[in-house]
Amino acid sequence: MSGYKGKVQRLLKTASVNVGDKIKVEDAGRTYEGVLMPRTELGDPNHLVIKLKSGYNLGIRIRTGTKISLLEKGTPPKLGLPKLEIRPDPSKPNVTIIGTGGTIASRVDYRSGAVFPAFTPEEIYSAVPELAEIANIKVVEACNVFSEHMTPELWIKIGKTVTDEINSGADGVVIAHGTDTMHYTAAALSFMLKGLHRPVVLVGSQRSSDRPSSDAALNLISAVAVAGKSDIAEVCVVMHGSMNDDICLVHRGTRVRKCHTSRRDAFLSVNDLPLAEVREREVKPLRTDYNKASRSGRITLNAKFEPMIALIKITPGLSSALMEKMIRMGYRGFVLEGTGLGHVPASLFKGIRKAIKSKIPIVMTSQCIWGRVDMKVYSTGRDLIEMGVIPGEDMLSETAWVKLMWVLGQTRNPKKVAEFMRRNVAREISERTTPIAFPVGFPSKTEFNQAGTSL
Amino acid sequence: MSGYKGKVQRLLKTASVNVGDKIKVEDAGRTYEGVLMPRTELGDPNHLVIKLKSGYNLGIRIRTGTKISLLEKGTPPKLGLPKLEIRPDPSKPNVTIIGTGGTIASRVDYRSGAVFPAFTPEEIYSAVPELAEIANIKVVEACNVFSEHMTPELWIKIGKTVTDEINSGADGVVIAHGTDTMHYTAAALSFMLKGLHRPVVLVGSQRSSDRPSSDAALNLISAVAVAGKSDIAEVCVVMHGSMNDDICLVHRGTRVRKCHTSRRDAFLSVNDLPLAEVREREVKPLRTDYNKASRSGRITLNAKFEPMIALIKITPGLSSALMEKMIRMGYRGFVLEGTGLGHVPASLFKGIRKAIKSKIPIVMTSQCIWGRVDMKVYSTGRDLIEMGVIPGEDMLSETAWVKLMWVLGQTRNPKKVAEFMRRNVAREISERTTPIAFPVGFPSKTEFNQAGTSL
Repeated sequence: MSGYKGKVQRLLKTASVNVGDKIKVEDAGRTYEGVLMPRTELGDPNHLVIKLKSGYNLGIRIRTGTKISLLEKGTPPKLGLPKLEIRPDPSKPNVTIIGTGGTIASRVDYRSGAVFPAFTPEEIYSAVPELAEIANIKVVEACNVFSEHMTPELWIKIGKTVTDEINSGADGVVIAHGTDTMHYTAAALSFMLKGLHRPVVLVGSQRSSDRPSSDAALNLISAVAVAGKSDIAEVCVVMHGSMNDDICLVHRGTRVRKCHTSRRDAFLSVNDLPLAEVREREVKPLRTDYNKASRSGRITLNAKFEPMIALIKITPGLSSALMEKMIRMGYRGFVLEGTGLGHVPASLFKGIRKAIKSKIPIVMTSQCIWGRVDMKVYSTGRDLIEMGVIPGEDMLSETAWVKLMWVLGQTRNPKKVAEFMRRNVAREISERTTPIAFPVGFPSKTEFNQAGTSL
Repeated sequence: MSGYKGKVQRLLKTASVNVGDKIKVEDAGRTYEGVLMPRTELGDPNHLVIKLKSGYNLGIRIRTGTKISLLEKGTPPKLGLPKLEIRPDPSKPNVTIIGTGGTIASRVDYRSGAVFPAFTPEEIYSAVPELAEIANIKVVEACNVFSEHMTPELWIKIGKTVTDEINSGADGVVIAHGTDTMHYTAAALSFMLKGLHRPVVLVGSQRSSDRPSSDAALNLISAVAVAGKSDIAEVCVVMHGSMNDDICLVHRGTRVRKCHTSRRDAFLSVNDLPLAEVREREVKPLRTDYNKASRSGRITLNAKFEPMIALIKITPGLSSALMEKMIRMGYRGFVLEGTGLGHVPASLFKGIRKAIKSKIPIVMTSQCIWGRVDMKVYSTGRDLIEMGVIPGEDMLSETAWVKLMWVLGQTRNPKKVAEFMRRNVAREISERTTPIAFPVGFPSKTEFNQAGTSL
């Protein structure tokens, strides 16, 4: 029974259900339909796993009263990793998947529970066969690090790979990236790729693809759909849009942030609406104000970054000593993640004055994350403006940090740096802040009591 | 007509409505009821302002089709700032309001539009008369700074004032505090006040109280209600719970964060449910697991903080040079706001090893904000654990930073520091992370189009 034991095995036997069959599971008023998947030896014996229509594997805890019924007989999946034949289809778009580290997809061996990482197109096709229906896949490796070890030099390597692929005819590009710093890389690419006329999609997974509840397959399928079929000529991030495995969201690369350590829907557009949603491989735009793709065009890579830029999160009582030391260390720019509308303690004024006197630009963002810096409301903000601090508007701190690195790669002229920082380069600033997509309210008591079961 | 002009004045005249009358305003299917307030000369002439039953002033834009009708004749409010007589009522709780900077409340002069700041009990009663119905108010000033200039020394001053007030018989304490760093002060007080047996409530306003849409009155009324009438013997933050001016939430002092620069409901409980809600001065607990107030008790102030603690937000490629420099500068502890589940670039390992070798504790939190650090999932996390990095569990970075300052004020023994940091001192850690209160999903198209009008 491919890994099922005890109570669960008995229940499956009673319902005459085998691995590969389409089944219905009813539990506490909820109904799930999908193909029964095999379990690894390591899995919790009280769960069964079904593959939903969306391609997502769902683990269901079997309790007293859970009902299982057979919907349709299927064929049991083969053991090991079959080689799926690739037939390039000229009617399908050509999508290049750029690897940056780790596996792009993987597949669990049904017998041993071992994970088969997928790197080559053949392996990826057999791990996520749905991809073959969307696009002709080519795979290129730009680098091989966990995303926490990503660096500006690697951003440039990725940028070069994207440029080469699109300039030599790829219809779209998917960058498989660890989630830790995916939004930093997305912002860097947004500033780097000049004349972008095709979709560039970063994708990752919050659960490694050897776990039954992995989000890897749906995210990858949705990312390839955006890269191959959408008209979004921007750098974007495609990740789960909810904890139900039914929707992915397309976030603008300069407006997105990882906001949860482990939830599948951890990535949020901040001060911005997602560009599109993806359901069952169909991309549905949610707005019209994005750069539209075109067939012809040529990307120029503008890949100079000044690495000596600091992002400082402001804390109460922070003195000027650290900043003065950092100026002597050769830091060339500062993004201050201030409090509230963009404030810092008066004890930091001395360091700020010293930096600006040394022509080191200082950009203010807010550690509130949501909202917009407004330094005209209170005297502290007005003082900072007068000193020459550049308001970061409603830019994310992470984006402002990447942008300042990039801007200082283009010019050292303080006036021009200030102009650049306040001007929209890759739609990183909204003209008007809207109170959207904010974690409004609070969960109901019921939600609170139920919470934690499905994280 | 006390500031009303043009179209709005004509509409009010037609309805025979004067300032002080209870009126009904119908606009685009929505109905509002309240007392017509006077306008300042500076206000937008196309708005009228009514005081809702909740005590909140609401500005309503008058458009073609807006209907106004008289519900009940009232008395026009007096000009200037009347002195409200105080009659201490022995049946009411005694609440001390501690000022820390700025005005606690204020009232607009109807004639000139000038703001009368309220500092004394008499002034506060006349600015927010509802307070007299809830408690006997005493006012004490602990310090006088904007909250962005708050320091650990001032936390101690505030802590001393709270201790003195409660130990000499106050039933509860309200601390009027700027919103920028209110959550840092709340965390500091949570660790400082040992044996706390009465409510200690921090309160602020996102809009200065001279604006018609100020949240100051409702927040202050709700804070005094919590301080005077609730059984919550913890340090908490009371602020708006929504953009409708009907509810305030009581957040635990160690689990709250300012998450929007300007929204009235900017403060959110993170990885935690609010303790209670306040509607029309009534405090309704939302959970039972908080410290219950008692009549007898005595607070001991444990107010030693090590100021040389750094909070470092990790960015891609961050080198060890800065941390090594900071060790030489005399920093005694670091909170690293890592990426994802609690990671840093490998380029920082050298600095971390050096710190730990010098018995400088390093605590890991996540810049994701929501969720929990888990350093056993990936090799980077396991490496860091092996080096001796202390996982910050699901603590907020801000709380972890304050806590490390406080813990190093108590002990320098690295083993004890690690124990303290992982142990709950003021309910700053959840045993289990729940996916609650997360900014789920994304706004609908309609919300997006309507957004920005009521921020």
